[in-house]
Amino acid sequence: MSHYQRHVFFCMNVREDGTACCGRHNAAEMQQYAKSRIKQMGLNGEGKIRINKSGCLDRCDEGPCVVVYPEGVWYTYVDRQDIDEIVDTHLVKGEVVERLRI
Amino acid sequence: MSHYQRHVFFCMNVREDGTACCGRHNAAEMQQYAKSRIKQMGLNGEGKIRINKSGCLDRCDEGPCVVVYPEGVWYTYVDRQDIDEIVDTHLVKGEVVERLRI
Repeated sequence: MSHYQRHVFFCMNVREDGTACCGRHNAAEMQQYAKSRIKQMGLNGEGKIRINKSGCLDRCDEGPCVVVYPEGVWYTYVDRQDIDEIVDTHLVKGEVVERLRI
Repeated sequence: MSHYQRHVFFCMNVREDGTACCGRHNAAEMQQYAKSRIKQMGLNGEGKIRINKSGCLDRCDEGPCVVVYPEGVWYTYVDRQDIDEIVDTHLVKGEVVERLRI
């Protein structure tokens, strides 16, 4: 196994020209929320789960987007309920959330 | 296969307290260099390779660090020669560079 069991990257890109981008859809708040939930459950750290910010993942037109490795599964989300589902179903149980997949 | 064949994240963290962190070791320059090389080779984009910046990967004490997914292989680097080796050997040929592994 790699350093983390699951490594999650939230696209934080903000385009200055006003076109679609993840950073204009609460990406920072949602990343912080996911990170806090994982920490509350004691699932953060080596051998467990890491929730990261990243630069532009180049899928902003389908976003806001997040990718979970090593599986390479991509999701979009709207609100905390979506983040809860990604955390509880994929990150904790290892099952893909087809509803939110892009 | 996922959206990208290989997805690379460079830790960009800068700690304000002066302790070890990737951002104080040319991380931004090296990320840009890797991204440019991949683009020059025409290997950037969907189904190919993406070179990203990321927030703190939490391995700064072993850094500067970079992680390659979906393999989950972690590297450190000093200069452009190290980046070249990671690009040419791992990203292009799919072979791990044991010398730079952390």
